[in-house]
Amino acid sequence: MRPSGRAPDEMRTISIEPNFTRHAEGSVLIGFGDTRVLVTASIEERIPPWLRGKGEGWVTAEYGMLPRATHTRSQREAAKGKQSGRTQEIQRLIGRSLRAVTDLKLLGERQITLDCDVIQADGGTRTAAISGAWVALRIATNKLLAAGLLEKDPILTQVAAVSCGIYQGNPVLDLDYDEDSAADADANFVLLADGKIAEAQATAEGATYDEEGLLRLLRLARIGCNQIFAAQLKAIG
Amino acid sequence: MRPSGRAPDEMRTISIEPNFTRHAEGSVLIGFGDTRVLVTASIEERIPPWLRGKGEGWVTAEYGMLPRATHTRSQREAAKGKQSGRTQEIQRLIGRSLRAVTDLKLLGERQITLDCDVIQADGGTRTAAISGAWVALRIATNKLLAAGLLEKDPILTQVAAVSCGIYQGNPVLDLDYDEDSAADADANFVLLADGKIAEAQATAEGATYDEEGLLRLLRLARIGCNQIFAAQLKAIG
Amino acid sequence: MRPSGRAPDEMRTISIEPNFTRHAEGSVLIGFGDTRVLVTASIEERIPPWLRGKGEGWVTAEYGMLPRATHTRSQREAAKGKQSGRTQEIQRLIGRSLRAVTDLKLLGERQITLDCDVIQADGGTRTAAISGAWVALRIATNKLLAAGLLEKDPILTQVAAVSCGIYQGNPVLDLDYDEDSAADADANFVLLADGKIAEAQATAEGATYDEEGLLRLLRLARIGCNQIFAAQLKAIG
Amino acid sequence: MRPSGRAPDEMRTISIEPNFTRHAEGSVLIGFGDTRVLVTASIEERIPPWLRGKGEGWVTAEYGMLPRATHTRSQREAAKGKQSGRTQEIQRLIGRSLRAVTDLKLLGERQITLDCDVIQADGGTRTAAISGAWVALRIATNKLLAAGLLEKDPILTQVAAVSCGIYQGNPVLDLDYDEDSAADADANFVLLADGKIAEAQATAEGATYDEEGLLRLLRLARIGCNQIFAAQLKAIG
Amino acid sequence: MRPSGRAPDEMRTISIEPNFTRHAEGSVLIGFGDTRVLVTASIEERIPPWLRGKGEGWVTAEYGMLPRATHTRSQREAAKGKQSGRTQEIQRLIGRSLRAVTDLKLLGERQITLDCDVIQADGGTRTAAISGAWVALRIATNKLLAAGLLEKDPILTQVAAVSCGIYQGNPVLDLDYDEDSAADADANFVLLADGKIAEAQATAEGATYDEEGLLRLLRLARIGCNQIFAAQLKAIG
Amino acid sequence: MRPSGRAPDEMRTISIEPNFTRHAEGSVLIGFGDTRVLVTASIEERIPPWLRGKGEGWVTAEYGMLPRATHTRSQREAAKGKQSGRTQEIQRLIGRSLRAVTDLKLLGERQITLDCDVIQADGGTRTAAISGAWVALRIATNKLLAAGLLEKDPILTQVAAVSCGIYQGNPVLDLDYDEDSAADADANFVLLADGKIAEAQATAEGATYDEEGLLRLLRLARIGCNQIFAAQLKAIG
Repeated sequence: MRPSGRAPDEMRTISIEPNFTRHAEGSVLIGFGDTRVLVTASIEERIPPWLRGKGEGWVTAEYGMLPRATHTRSQREAAKGKQSGRTQEIQRLIGRSLRAVTDLKLLGERQITLDCDVIQADGGTRTAAISGAWVALRIATNKLLAAGLLEKDPILTQVAAVSCGIYQGNPVLDLDYDEDSAADADANFVLLADGKIAEAQATAEGATYDEEGLLRLLRLARIGCNQIFAAQLKAIG
Repeated sequence: MRPSGRAPDEMRTISIEPNFTRHAEGSVLIGFGDTRVLVTASIEERIPPWLRGKGEGWVTAEYGMLPRATHTRSQREAAKGKQSGRTQEIQRLIGRSLRAVTDLKLLGERQITLDCDVIQADGGTRTAAISGAWVALRIATNKLLAAGLLEKDPILTQVAAVSCGIYQGNPVLDLDYDEDSAADADANFVLLADGKIAEAQATAEGATYDEEGLLRLLRLARIGCNQIFAAQLKAIG
Repeated sequence: MRPSGRAPDEMRTISIEPNFTRHAEGSVLIGFGDTRVLVTASIEERIPPWLRGKGEGWVTAEYGMLPRATHTRSQREAAKGKQSGRTQEIQRLIGRSLRAVTDLKLLGERQITLDCDVIQADGGTRTAAISGAWVALRIATNKLLAAGLLEKDPILTQVAAVSCGIYQGNPVLDLDYDEDSAADADANFVLLADGKIAEAQATAEGATYDEEGLLRLLRLARIGCNQIFAAQLKAIG
Repeated sequence: MRPSGRAPDEMRTISIEPNFTRHAEGSVLIGFGDTRVLVTASIEERIPPWLRGKGEGWVTAEYGMLPRATHTRSQREAAKGKQSGRTQEIQRLIGRSLRAVTDLKLLGERQITLDCDVIQADGGTRTAAISGAWVALRIATNKLLAAGLLEKDPILTQVAAVSCGIYQGNPVLDLDYDEDSAADADANFVLLADGKIAEAQATAEGATYDEEGLLRLLRLARIGCNQIFAAQLKAIG
Repeated sequence: MRPSGRAPDEMRTISIEPNFTRHAEGSVLIGFGDTRVLVTASIEERIPPWLRGKGEGWVTAEYGMLPRATHTRSQREAAKGKQSGRTQEIQRLIGRSLRAVTDLKLLGERQITLDCDVIQADGGTRTAAISGAWVALRIATNKLLAAGLLEKDPILTQVAAVSCGIYQGNPVLDLDYDEDSAADADANFVLLADGKIAEAQATAEGATYDEEGLLRLLRLARIGCNQIFAAQLKAIG
Repeated sequence: MRPSGRAPDEMRTISIEPNFTRHAEGSVLIGFGDTRVLVTASIEERIPPWLRGKGEGWVTAEYGMLPRATHTRSQREAAKGKQSGRTQEIQRLIGRSLRAVTDLKLLGERQITLDCDVIQADGGTRTAAISGAWVALRIATNKLLAAGLLEKDPILTQVAAVSCGIYQGNPVLDLDYDEDSAADADANFVLLADGKIAEAQATAEGATYDEEGLLRLLRLARIGCNQIFAAQLKAIG
């Protein structure tokens, strides 16, 4: 039995509120249950130095957590003077995931930065961030298309992510904090709407797992992502 | 004529949404027009080293701005590896302002940290932060009182803050971004509900000002703070 | 009764020794009683990147305190690897104060940096720094005028600063360390010789104050600054 | 055809030179082809603060790359003043992998740090590091057992890691630099000698992959790790 | 011919002004010609962690240069966020030099920090710093003796330092900036009043030197240090 | 009697293994007894900004020590976020030493960086680094000459370094760790094959020394360096 009473393959409520803030070219507040992440997409007409002259654009991400998004207050990274290894690992994952569905040549010589800031954390913040970032990216890209700044749509398909894990011996979908902190294995899958996989990461925590376990987690993730894909489409209208 | 069409002594709409997030002992989303600041109050049963053994508590604040709270994206302070001088100046001001209405002896040997994170910026973020921080502090302190952890209320009175400035030669209340970036003088007042002043800061930008100008700004601030005091009381019910 | 025996409106001895060091375009050792600050003005024929192409110059300031300027040794900021919030707040104030009396268009595309280093501290270091910085700026600008590098004088008027505070219930002028550490309210005023105000900052420490108190502090500051203006003129001959 | 002429399921030559340096409790120079990583295991009779009083030990890792381990010189992280996100991600992975085969309670209140320094890089540095770290950890733990400082062996089984990828449409084992920089997908598997999985990470680079692709990569990894397990046993005699 | 017209074995004017500032236990403004360094000695009744329990004290030094001590302004190290390699090298040298004449056991469990801040630079700042630091240390230690906090004098003898160099083929004493920037070889000697050597450092700049050259520089240094020893004694009365 | 049983003027075994790694233009593993340092020479066709337009090249060095090169593990400088004063002092010394034998004009507008990483430490790491760096520089420069990128050889002569010290009252050559940690005086000499001196540094540790002592150390250094010069020539064939 899961602490939340959910079925093993049951997602938490997915909420997506587009245009949550005014200034960004794309913005969304996404919720997976009590986890809430604000994602903004910022378009800049410049690219990183190492891309210059290649006729391509770039999509990148940054991730942060407000100090009291968590059960107990954690120190502000700006005050500590550096981003933790965890933060850097997550923002690299988000960037890769969004680039997996973007044709950077079609994007042209511009950069889109996806800022993912966790307002409230209850497990699955990185997967909510990726899922919300696609919506923010979609909204921002639609503006470029509407303004005639892009001729062809650089977004190839949808991308979403969800966590799965082995909790008390059972594979379960979309771990909340109570499950996450006690799971034997913890996985994050980044899946595409065309059926492909962009990223699979499965980590043994208390107990190692086997090939069969990995496959069962992947199949749960597909169930969850299909629901997120539907919610993404509904959010952008 | 103000860009927004407001009268010289007219505040923007004040919105205060208490309990915006779940984990913090106190939390509020405050808005002055399009400026929106999330403030959380975190209670910790420990005090800074230099206070140990004095039987007193501490109230402090941190301030941050999400990278795309602003019209154009600014670099994330955690990524730059340090907080700007502006950030540090603001968080010192917020902390002082809240301590001005707190009896630290009555608070006992605990620390309350007010995290003020700007979700959307349109001028007046520091004054909205102070005004919201009082509500978050009030909610958190009420929990301590309700739990019997405090015998007497350490909050002496209400505190609120508002900006004023001289715009095109005229003193005006509660500058938005358009006014703030063009004002001749820019002031922030931190006022108490008992009529006292906790902090007055008035800075000449394009043109210097005189004693008469300073007084007119202070009187506008009193008008604005009285409205904020009412909104604070309404928010905490 | 003030610890020093001074009258409430009595400044400490103001000493200004121009040309204290050789290399800087302008240099001064200023003393307010035992507080001694070395200020140098350095002219550089370059401007910050964000000013390029506007035909304007820039005046900025940096502030530091020698580790043993104070009663007990404080850690060297260069060794700690960052400037404190207090240091940054002060150097921003000094820069704004000097820009308030400088026509940046007349200055042309050059930068003048005012380095204010506290040799010995006894209260009022930031106000001594501002008052001394004007002399260093004046000397440096005179050299530019004498060399024909400037056609018109960019310095509009004199600027000086002094601290005031409410000590044991009484408004007093030019707080020394003993008064500063015990004052109920602490204010710094940056005033111009033409009667205008560049900056007013009044902070409640132990007790809040009211409008009448603010005005009385401002009037004391005017008394003190008038004496500093006279000492500045005498120092530059 | 692979650039090296290897078969799809063919590892590069695995070389393991134990006791490469003198001072560390365990030390090994491991090579996967031209990739060479020096791993040392350091035992310290202290544990991180957050573990105190739990009667458990800790195994952790640090990773570095000599500036000219790579084809062109990269900047020294100590000179830059921070470890890159990639470095932190790798050292977190190494630490987790070794903890997956260590009973931390049996280890007792001591910490073993595995320093993995890349002397020469040609793809697969993190997997060589994990595979070599097990040998260093085994040697160091054997010394604790021989000295009677441990009663029971805390090492549960062997752990090894290898990279796989989809290169020109074909799943291949143990990518070298030429393959790695051109692969469509890049995976790292951390496997246990008992058949379990400690970590699976598969990332789409140029092209996404599917469930079948993921399984084929996993099976290649099992082939490679079995060879590494044999080499590890041979190295420790 | 030296640019200053000095004879090869002629020092610049040595000036030592003791008690230049009020708060430090020892303080001195030392000048070698136009080079001026403010040195303060701060006594703290605590020792570094690695010395605890050994019954010994510690003498250490920090070095800094005001941004406009030099001909052109250099960036403030506190603003850059780190001390340069040169700064660290110099402060390590100063600390070693003073420890060479201090019996750390007689000093007892306390630390004396010598802060050497260059007010004006014209070559030889590190040697002036060492020479002045001895005076500050002497004054501070005398206070400890006078207060009965020390039974026996821990200062064993005098220490002083001077630079020498090979300028246009000729060995010369006490290089000023013009000579220093053009010298073929540049040496710093730290000598003791009892005839011993604490430190010799001789570096080829434009041209290498030989054993004979090294000896001639050392003999010049002895001439210079004897004059400094006399000036030190005169300064402390 | 030396702990190692060596005669006072006896070097440890010198081992030089050229081409230890593949990617660098020059590379060598040098050993002085148990001290082992990996040195790589990296040629880059760019120069530091302050050299641009002068038609000269640059030779510089960086130094690092693997965390467990030493008897007990020391913290990784990349993890601490800064290089120690000792590290910076050593890498400045290495760079100066190699520049003393390089004609920078003949080198042309390119930079050669010598990375010296200590694999195992047993005293004398900086002198081994300098001695090995000459071999790496020689190999790299030979490649430039062979490729016709240089017309004339910019390497003027050989440079080598060795430590000497006064151990139990006797001058001895090439201190190992046991001697180094107990020596009364510790010196490093950087000598040229043409008989000149590039750098002499002699530091009193427990006891000061005199002119005669300095000369005896210098003569021991000459004995040691002559052996190193021979080993260098043999290594490059």
